[in-house]
Amino acid sequence: MIKKGFASDNNSGAQPQILAAMIEANQGHATGYGDDEYTRRVTELFKEHFGDDVDVNIVFNGTASNVLGIMAAGRSYNSVICTDTAHINVDECGAPEKVAGTKVIGVPHENGKLLPERVMPHLHGFGFEHHSQPGILSISQVTELGTVYTPDEVRALADLAHSHGMMLHMDGARIANAAASLNLPFRKFTRDCGVDVLSFGGTKNGMIMGEALLFFRKEFSQGFKYLRKQHMQLFSKMRFVSAQFNAYFKDNLWLTSAMHSNKMARLLENKLEDIDQVQITRPVEANGVFAIIPEHWIAPLQNKYFFYMWDEAVNEVRWMCSFDTTVDDIELFVAEIRKLAQNG
Amino acid sequence: MIKKGFASDNNSGAQPQILAAMIEANQGHATGYGDDEYTRRVTELFKEHFGDDVDVNIVFNGTASNVLGIMAAGRSYNSVICTDTAHINVDECGAPEKVAGTKVIGVPHENGKLLPERVMPHLHGFGFEHHSQPGILSISQVTELGTVYTPDEVRALADLAHSHGMMLHMDGARIANAAASLNLPFRKFTRDCGVDVLSFGGTKNGMIMGEALLFFRKEFSQGFKYLRKQHMQLFSKMRFVSAQFNAYFKDNLWLTSAMHSNKMARLLENKLEDIDQVQITRPVEANGVFAIIPEHWIAPLQNKYFFYMWDEAVNEVRWMCSFDTTVDDIELFVAEIRKLAQNG
Amino acid sequence: MIKKGFASDNNSGAQPQILAAMIEANQGHATGYGDDEYTRRVTELFKEHFGDDVDVNIVFNGTASNVLGIMAAGRSYNSVICTDTAHINVDECGAPEKVAGTKVIGVPHENGKLLPERVMPHLHGFGFEHHSQPGILSISQVTELGTVYTPDEVRALADLAHSHGMMLHMDGARIANAAASLNLPFRKFTRDCGVDVLSFGGTKNGMIMGEALLFFRKEFSQGFKYLRKQHMQLFSKMRFVSAQFNAYFKDNLWLTSAMHSNKMARLLENKLEDIDQVQITRPVEANGVFAIIPEHWIAPLQNKYFFYMWDEAVNEVRWMCSFDTTVDDIELFVAEIRKLAQNG
Amino acid sequence: MIKKGFASDNNSGAQPQILAAMIEANQGHATGYGDDEYTRRVTELFKEHFGDDVDVNIVFNGTASNVLGIMAAGRSYNSVICTDTAHINVDECGAPEKVAGTKVIGVPHENGKLLPERVMPHLHGFGFEHHSQPGILSISQVTELGTVYTPDEVRALADLAHSHGMMLHMDGARIANAAASLNLPFRKFTRDCGVDVLSFGGTKNGMIMGEALLFFRKEFSQGFKYLRKQHMQLFSKMRFVSAQFNAYFKDNLWLTSAMHSNKMARLLENKLEDIDQVQITRPVEANGVFAIIPEHWIAPLQNKYFFYMWDEAVNEVRWMCSFDTTVDDIELFVAEIRKLAQNG
Repeated sequence: MIKKGFASDNNSGAQPQILAAMIEANQGHATGYGDDEYTRRVTELFKEHFGDDVDVNIVFNGTASNVLGIMAAGRSYNSVICTDTAHINVDECGAPEKVAGTKVIGVPHENGKLLPERVMPHLHGFGFEHHSQPGILSISQVTELGTVYTPDEVRALADLAHSHGMMLHMDGARIANAAASLNLPFRKFTRDCGVDVLSFGGTKNGMIMGEALLFFRKEFSQGFKYLRKQHMQLFSKMRFVSAQFNAYFKDNLWLTSAMHSNKMARLLENKLEDIDQVQITRPVEANGVFAIIPEHWIAPLQNKYFFYMWDEAVNEVRWMCSFDTTVDDIELFVAEIRKLAQNG
Repeated sequence: MIKKGFASDNNSGAQPQILAAMIEANQGHATGYGDDEYTRRVTELFKEHFGDDVDVNIVFNGTASNVLGIMAAGRSYNSVICTDTAHINVDECGAPEKVAGTKVIGVPHENGKLLPERVMPHLHGFGFEHHSQPGILSISQVTELGTVYTPDEVRALADLAHSHGMMLHMDGARIANAAASLNLPFRKFTRDCGVDVLSFGGTKNGMIMGEALLFFRKEFSQGFKYLRKQHMQLFSKMRFVSAQFNAYFKDNLWLTSAMHSNKMARLLENKLEDIDQVQITRPVEANGVFAIIPEHWIAPLQNKYFFYMWDEAVNEVRWMCSFDTTVDDIELFVAEIRKLAQNG
Repeated sequence: MIKKGFASDNNSGAQPQILAAMIEANQGHATGYGDDEYTRRVTELFKEHFGDDVDVNIVFNGTASNVLGIMAAGRSYNSVICTDTAHINVDECGAPEKVAGTKVIGVPHENGKLLPERVMPHLHGFGFEHHSQPGILSISQVTELGTVYTPDEVRALADLAHSHGMMLHMDGARIANAAASLNLPFRKFTRDCGVDVLSFGGTKNGMIMGEALLFFRKEFSQGFKYLRKQHMQLFSKMRFVSAQFNAYFKDNLWLTSAMHSNKMARLLENKLEDIDQVQITRPVEANGVFAIIPEHWIAPLQNKYFFYMWDEAVNEVRWMCSFDTTVDDIELFVAEIRKLAQNG
Repeated sequence: MIKKGFASDNNSGAQPQILAAMIEANQGHATGYGDDEYTRRVTELFKEHFGDDVDVNIVFNGTASNVLGIMAAGRSYNSVICTDTAHINVDECGAPEKVAGTKVIGVPHENGKLLPERVMPHLHGFGFEHHSQPGILSISQVTELGTVYTPDEVRALADLAHSHGMMLHMDGARIANAAASLNLPFRKFTRDCGVDVLSFGGTKNGMIMGEALLFFRKEFSQGFKYLRKQHMQLFSKMRFVSAQFNAYFKDNLWLTSAMHSNKMARLLENKLEDIDQVQITRPVEANGVFAIIPEHWIAPLQNKYFFYMWDEAVNEVRWMCSFDTTVDDIELFVAEIRKLAQNG
């Protein structure tokens, strides 16, 4: 066990309820590959949240959810337009390119968000066979910079996409934190705003593993079960992922967790406000805090707490809060920073 | 929960120790993606079994282990030669072809085994650019028909492969059952017999998920961590898979489990011996029993117990035993069959 | 220049009219990539032969025509069922697997033909996600063994395919020879018999290069121009391929050529008939002659004439005739064989 | 035949010598797939230009040359860094991504050139498995904006690449124009400056088709013949491409052609100099002229001459000269522009 830090919400473990559900699911036999009661229950739960005709597909991780979502929603000759900071652009080791065959175009972000006006210069070359055909807009909700798209912002991008015959994909690795931040049901800022395909993540919010790839268009589902299997994403003892999702939704565990980690981030932001040398660089809208700190603080602080540099050029750091971050954790961390501040 | 049946060893749940280990691992933070103490311990354990220079790579499932193993050991223009019953040939929905780009050639098996003399007609066209270059022999240990290669048989195939500049891959989805059957350490019938790359499975023997892809040649490891990530097989909270492997190896849990399921299969075989209408079709060497039964038995029996047809043309069925199959399970099942036999 | 032999119909050069048409096309500027009068004319010509709604796509070679045809007519998780001797199975270095991602299943042939009854055992696993979904039957017309499917045979395979929701692809590398052999318009044994996608070759019958990929189903055309470009098959100065096709169809050059090469093969067969040591092994229905000859003849004969072994195990050889094979060529070749026969 | 325009150097036809060589090659039989005297001669010619150990591989077109060059020089998890205007980035419909699996990163150009200081921010994440590993720098010589890298500029990029364990690829679609512009032998600004893999184009300078992919590192050649075949780029009657290359090199036809088209571009530039409304936007260093002209000129001018807009936002046009552009063509075109200028 390493010291609890602020490196990533996937460094935290699992909510106890998640593991308890797995143990509960460990009774007798269940047909493999998703033909089991736990998985059927997951589908029902997602239908409650997203509508009866949502197509639910469990895959192993976020990379797979994003890549197979893109594959289902487009063809190899399509391009995917996202921010230059998007996870699919910089943190998947080229998986969309290799597996889906698509070109990924990263455009400059605004606090992590994709802006329609920056997408538009790339919406050309339709029908011109030499040009990767713009096919998908992809946004991350929460963004990689801890900001949250409003429903209007999502809708504007969906409209832009649809008016060009394109699709809108949402990478919801931290979608629970977005829902908590917006204080809205999932559906209100996804499907109802025009999102066509959604990677619904749970791992970063207290699950052990497993992501749900949701399709809001029937045509994406066609043949998808074969694509999932062929791309090595079919879980054999699927009940053990499904049980986690069941626990995740039960009593709104997802919401409690996400509200808490968001709150911890705001607390951290508040407590840092009066430290002059710390400059918060992004709106704190979910569970991440981005800040520029003096360069000579970084080594001693990283010595005590594990966290990542966001932009080494300007000494911008990223501090992520998790479901298990406590007020004490925040206070001890801030105390450490204060010590550095006092020493100049 | 469905009635315990004989459908597949992945219909069983997990050993309690496996889940206990996951709970134990759920303490505090751990760096994601494998840079944690649990994963380091897994590597050590595999080194104890396979030698200090084995390269250990955890992936999500058996499909991935097989496909990425093939990818690492060959090039897209290589062909993989296996039996026509091999999992990679008939049960991966074309994953090796799509993901690794390789041609898969299935040759007629002998009780599930690949015979050198049936491979040899395919060892031609070397250097001829129109021909997929024979690159890999792939065998399943235990085979899909419940038989087990002897060390000599493995070595003969390895020698055949190596003498043609080819590699030997072993799909060890049920490798623990093979070890139990042969009463040999893993190494003695894999690496020491010339296996170059091994998919080491645990899911079918009481783990929840997770496979280890082992390389016995340094050159396969080059760049593999990028291939794993790019092919969507990097686990974020990896400690929860690694903890399972740790428990799997502890006190030889793997061996106890595998010995038990093998024993249950032999028990089933023995108890069926004096039922004339049941014809055991394959040597029972691990945890599967294959038999031809009267066609009109199938529906009533499947009504009570879930199991798969192996070859509908001849009414050959497959009955798999698991770590959790009990003597009672066997006796009740055989009693059911006896009833059918008495009714003609 | 090597001695004219019987190795392959692609060892011959080009019909003079083909080159003349290229020279004629070499006047002034023409828009690149197919937006030129020569290419429009090719499309018209194919429409005359195959119907107004045929979709015509020029690609570089037969490999590309076959692979992109398969890609357009199926998905990566489909399997392609063909004979074990099919070009796409043994002579494309795994291109269908790597590029289209499909599994290719070769079944035993009957004189090069795919028989419905040998296909049927592979028509299973529909809807089962572990199994490559049978998607395409692919046949070669003329077959790799010089035989020609009758319209009834084609129709039977098309019906079998369509009744299982599958498509029928025809590799028409030697389609002109088939038309000449059957004495039928192209359409009568392709589209009218249920062929869905056709690789229409010209290179082996006197063109320099260039193949036409014809779609008889509108849905295959969707987005195909992007797939062609993305898969590196878009010709920049396309008029120079299109001009060849124009010349190929003019005054039925294709037919004259094919009739001639077929005739030469029959002549060769006839002249060999009374040589006891030569056993013709396949019906001579197009421009190829297959024969078993004494092993000790092979080296001296290959010393004088370039040709390929078909099956070394039984000393079966393949002799291909071309548009430029002359009666003299045949007579000299047979004389050489007679000499060998006389020497025992 | 369309009116000669300034759209693209691939709208021109072929040099008469090229077609004459094809006719000359059309004698008797030649072994297919490159085992012929014409292809052997091509190899010798390239060795004369690039050194005895160059590996010469003929493919169909520039797309293939670039994509297979990248594939041979890297792995799927590598990224290729080029300018945002690079042909491989914007004009291959995503072929590098789909076929080689690589990520392509376009960085802002300077008159079409890749600058080391703009590459450097992308040279990070080495060893970090989430990040596409920077593997290849790719430059176009002549650039897409008609400028030519000096040997020093090439060397600086090669040094940058090599110092990071990366490779330098050159897209030489217009390499003859570069050689003519620099007045240097090919080798002096390619291999001798550190280029590792070169796409050597002839089509845009008077050939009909065919590109040569040259490797200056032995390790790239390993298995490449299989990759070429598997990726549908093996020419069956290869002598007809090789004959073109032979003619292309004979009596320095390539140089005469390239010098001429370069000269025509300079002539066009000169003649436009005193027309105030025409603003030449890029250094005219090869056969292309880029200019901003009044928006209302574009339609009437395109009505008479076919050419492409480069940047519609600022009315920047591209005028390409070919080997067959005459002084008269230039004068008539300029006269047309003068007429527009006089009318305001």
